[in-house]
Amino acid sequence: MTQTANTSTNDRTARTPVALLGLGAMGTALARAWLAAGHPLTVWNRTPARAEALAAEGAVVAATAADAVAAAELVVVCLLDDASVGTALADADLTGKDLVDLVTGTPSEARERARWAEGRGARFLDGGIMAVPPMIGVPDSGGYVFYSGSRALFDRHRAALEVPAGARFAGTDPGAAALHDGALLCAMYGLFAGMTHAFALVEGEDVDRAAFTSVLTEWLGAMTAVHAAGAAAGPASPLAMQVAATATLLRTTEEQGVDPGLVQPYFRLMERQLARGGDEAAGLVSLLRDRA
Amino acid sequence: MTQTANTSTNDRTARTPVALLGLGAMGTALARAWLAAGHPLTVWNRTPARAEALAAEGAVVAATAADAVAAAELVVVCLLDDASVGTALADADLTGKDLVDLVTGTPSEARERARWAEGRGARFLDGGIMAVPPMIGVPDSGGYVFYSGSRALFDRHRAALEVPAGARFAGTDPGAAALHDGALLCAMYGLFAGMTHAFALVEGEDVDRAAFTSVLTEWLGAMTAVHAAGAAAGPASPLAMQVAATATLLRTTEEQGVDPGLVQPYFRLMERQLARGGDEAAGLVSLLRDRA
Repeated sequence: MTQTANTSTNDRTARTPVALLGLGAMGTALARAWLAAGHPLTVWNRTPARAEALAAEGAVVAATAADAVAAAELVVVCLLDDASVGTALADADLTGKDLVDLVTGTPSEARERARWAEGRGARFLDGGIMAVPPMIGVPDSGGYVFYSGSRALFDRHRAALEVPAGARFAGTDPGAAALHDGALLCAMYGLFAGMTHAFALVEGEDVDRAAFTSVLTEWLGAMTAVHAAGAAAGPASPLAMQVAATATLLRTTEEQGVDPGLVQPYFRLMERQLARGGDEAAGLVSLLRDRA
Repeated sequence: MTQTANTSTNDRTARTPVALLGLGAMGTALARAWLAAGHPLTVWNRTPARAEALAAEGAVVAATAADAVAAAELVVVCLLDDASVGTALADADLTGKDLVDLVTGTPSEARERARWAEGRGARFLDGGIMAVPPMIGVPDSGGYVFYSGSRALFDRHRAALEVPAGARFAGTDPGAAALHDGALLCAMYGLFAGMTHAFALVEGEDVDRAAFTSVLTEWLGAMTAVHAAGAAAGPASPLAMQVAATATLLRTTEEQGVDPGLVQPYFRLMERQLARGGDEAAGLVSLLRDRA
């Protein structure tokens, strides 16, 4: 069980009560973090078995979602998807509630859910969790949550929100948290694609894996900074030279028996940008957008 | 003009003479770094105009590539491609020379060129430059060169090799430098693809670009470390959960009017790995390799 440092469970009455709906891996981790920090916690899950272990740890188990909502002003939902939120809360009285929606969804789903919640008398805050369950409730894990929507709700409950992970306000547009979440995860998968391709290239060669991983990590840190700066200041290398150099990278990839599919789409995007006369990497962004 | 710190040009005779063939943007930057550090430098370029400015800065201009090679034991080539090396050095006497090949090429090209050089009586070192020309000769620029092949050559000329940029020995396999170079560049383009996709998602939204770039950079640094550790220790998140979450990322991408082409290949690779019963991200590497 995770523990938040320096928190006694003896001062439970001083902590903001929390109602938590949804006890998957993430919901369970959130529950344990709030319990460990001394927050009175009422939980509900569609299938009750998952709630039983938490009851033994101090949580009150509500029979229905509406009962859980009635138990606290601060209501956190961590269900499977946005549709589940509508279903679970169909009969709940949301008047005067502060609803925090940690369900993974799209920006427009969050905006629509914000209108729905406000129409039912609740304040609404959407959250995008930038952490995996083992990081929840662990001080200095680096995990955090993007929040967007009601700044008043965020400010009022910030202490409780910061118990499971760091809390960052992404904007009053309720879609901002989901947008940040999606953008960072997509960037991460691009990074992972590049690293996977690199590991595939050296696989089976007489290359020390630990040393290679170390130089790769150092290089990617430097190139992240270069690209972040370049998004404003222009690329470090002319696009024409970069496109020319991709031919060698593809020949190396072929020599090593590696599928070029993870790197080719970006090479083609650079070629398209060069072909339309743009010599700036920043132009690739507009090329990616249908509505540019 | 770049300057290496704390180096006087008065002690030129104490420095290793260098013959440099090829004066493109990178070759010219290398030449200026060695001149600034006091190395006697003989240069040759297929078209002589580029050598003239360097002559005014102290370089000796050779009439032919063979003449340049004759002028120094340490011969550095920075030509357009591997074929140019064979052409330029066709008539040169390489007996007893230390040939450093900084041409961008594939691992097998480097291995073949090493055999060719050794067959003509030279020691051979291949180099892969992890820097752009403006970083050459600039202390603490972060730029460096991977070298592979003759360790004896590397050790003997390390001081001279470290003048333009840091020098790292990647292995005695002459192909190791090109392999490291290719792997790091491919990883970089994966990273750039992910960042480009992320910037496209937030383009036109009410998102502060500088703040977004800052959280993106921080996130990618953390995820680089997670993936580097995960390559040995297994993924932080089960593959099945990651695959399920990609559906939301693709819906967000579509909502924002962004072409999913840069992220989809990695999503498909995760799906294929899951479909074949593998629940480890490390298995993606073998899936990328035809000959696995």
